[in-house]
Amino acid sequence: MHSFIPPARLLLGPGPSNVPPRILAALARPTIGHLDPRFVAMMDEVKVLLQQAFRTSNRLTLPISAPGSAGMEACFVNLIEPGDTVIVCRNGVFGGRMRENVMRLGAHCVLVEDPFGQAVSLDKVDAALKANPGAKALAFVHAETSTGAASDAAALCKLAREHGALSIVDSVTGLGGIPLEVDAWGADAIYSGSQKCLSAPPGLSPLSFGEHAVAALNARKTPVQSWFLDLGLVMSYWSGEGARAYHHTAPVNMLYALHEALLILHEEGLEASWARHRANHLRLRDGLTAIGLQMLVPEAARLPQLNTVCIPAGSDDLGTRRRLLDEFGIEVGGGLGELAGKVWRIGLMGHASRPENVDRVLQALAIILDRKAA
Amino acid sequence: MHSFIPPARLLLGPGPSNVPPRILAALARPTIGHLDPRFVAMMDEVKVLLQQAFRTSNRLTLPISAPGSAGMEACFVNLIEPGDTVIVCRNGVFGGRMRENVMRLGAHCVLVEDPFGQAVSLDKVDAALKANPGAKALAFVHAETSTGAASDAAALCKLAREHGALSIVDSVTGLGGIPLEVDAWGADAIYSGSQKCLSAPPGLSPLSFGEHAVAALNARKTPVQSWFLDLGLVMSYWSGEGARAYHHTAPVNMLYALHEALLILHEEGLEASWARHRANHLRLRDGLTAIGLQMLVPEAARLPQLNTVCIPAGSDDLGTRRRLLDEFGIEVGGGLGELAGKVWRIGLMGHASRPENVDRVLQALAIILDRKAA
Repeated sequence: MHSFIPPARLLLGPGPSNVPPRILAALARPTIGHLDPRFVAMMDEVKVLLQQAFRTSNRLTLPISAPGSAGMEACFVNLIEPGDTVIVCRNGVFGGRMRENVMRLGAHCVLVEDPFGQAVSLDKVDAALKANPGAKALAFVHAETSTGAASDAAALCKLAREHGALSIVDSVTGLGGIPLEVDAWGADAIYSGSQKCLSAPPGLSPLSFGEHAVAALNARKTPVQSWFLDLGLVMSYWSGEGARAYHHTAPVNMLYALHEALLILHEEGLEASWARHRANHLRLRDGLTAIGLQMLVPEAARLPQLNTVCIPAGSDDLGTRRRLLDEFGIEVGGGLGELAGKVWRIGLMGHASRPENVDRVLQALAIILDRKAA
Repeated sequence: MHSFIPPARLLLGPGPSNVPPRILAALARPTIGHLDPRFVAMMDEVKVLLQQAFRTSNRLTLPISAPGSAGMEACFVNLIEPGDTVIVCRNGVFGGRMRENVMRLGAHCVLVEDPFGQAVSLDKVDAALKANPGAKALAFVHAETSTGAASDAAALCKLAREHGALSIVDSVTGLGGIPLEVDAWGADAIYSGSQKCLSAPPGLSPLSFGEHAVAALNARKTPVQSWFLDLGLVMSYWSGEGARAYHHTAPVNMLYALHEALLILHEEGLEASWARHRANHLRLRDGLTAIGLQMLVPEAARLPQLNTVCIPAGSDDLGTRRRLLDEFGIEVGGGLGELAGKVWRIGLMGHASRPENVDRVLQALAIILDRKAA
């Protein structure tokens, strides 16, 4: 065995996205102690930068030391107790995963189902909230990575609040790529991932809890079932004056990378990043249309950073993706769950959302599928 | 805010240890997809290298995508069900954390207590196993990072097996630094950390389950309460022929680093690494003795990679550590739990276990404490 030298790849799948050299350089800086005063000061900057990215003043804003799936689990294990009722919107794979989380907690899950590729239906959610008074939470996916559909998070958070339910929002693929306003929308608990529109390597899950979520955490009758994800304990490391209480050993280098990624986002500006993602999405959409390919998601619900393209009849899913990878060095995603074999997922996330990348994947697809632009 | 440039530090605390340039270089290689065939092939190498490091042929050997605390939790949530009895040996902070894990699972915890700084008492464990027939598991810490004490893992695993209990072994600080023989000892479930004697950055927890543990996992009556740590699901990503099932997005760059760290350990050889840790420990012990400092742990139970030194009467704990850091760039650890303020923890782990580092910390301590070698 030898040192692993990764091949050159243009990452236009559902994440991870390409990590720019500046973030890789930050990642590779010498490791220091997780209780070193200089490191603790950097952690404070990470919190501030995350608050800016989430558009929130929530004090409980920090990255979970594990991938987005753990961020999801952190929300559920901290907020939900056995016997609680949670309304889960399932319009893709990640809604299904939320349901798994609820069930494993011994809580009751009410599913609101919409077809894969559609936004969550506000009417159905309203009806479910009315039919389940006292529901503890409404959980939904802001940006469904498995389908490319955006849902109206502002309206869903508002509905939850009106019915006295907490909102739990998956914005793993949303943060940095599309408008997200945690405070203005009243999102109570939200989590994201480092490896999508932030363009840091995978492995961290930014999370934010608002005052209603913190109140629910403080009012728990049972201990949080996960020690690792217990936010009461995690917070004792991530906040407070002076010395921090040891909880777990923070992933020091990954936090260097997240710090740098958030700094880059801050330098570009949130609105500018959203606009860039949108512009490159439109460029891709136009190009796909020109070679006769269709989008799965209705226009109003399309995520600019995750474009699901219907695989044309007669085309070979795996073979096409294999050729994209082997001949062109381009990774795109296959369909997940019930969309397997039916769609390709073309991500234009973070650093990778650039016109030249759009053109590269369009050109490669046109060659492989033998289609000329109309 | 600016890019974070960490200060130069010699990391002689309880971990993380210094990460050598070769591992930092691996960490910074371009991110590729977590389902990329080339990445999957590297994952297979990581599994083989981990098997070698653990001295096991266990198929279920892989790194958990989170720090050692999550590795601990993965063992408990996968093996223990509500109502089970678990015998937990507590001779340091991490035994106490194991107890927390057991209680949060709704299982019954029987504590076997030994003083901080002592090895786990085999007699007490034997008595506890006899007094609790049908106990599901015996959990203990092989290398107690909070106290510097090694316990006789071979004998403890044997006792557990004789009583039909699974052994759950914390070797976060042990792996790579002291003899560890998973198969020869019959350790059923074991976890470690990337940031100690492997000298990779913190954030991953190598884990291995033997056949008895896998049988217990397969015989569960209740679902694993954590979705993220459910090894049945994690395994579907880490094994199998051809394409891997997506579970969570693997921490790609951290796995590059772990791969390189394991390769370095393989090149040096396990026995050579153990011998190096022991030699540098003896050099440190001799130097500490020469300036009149005493070790907390009785000689027979001393961990070479984590040396607990009694703070001499009249010396200032925080002030001394602050001067070590500020004036000499050396991090050592303070005491944890009931040892806070009573000991310093001097780690000589992995890449940092070198004679010149021993001499640096001895010289700095002699200056700060104003002691001359006898």
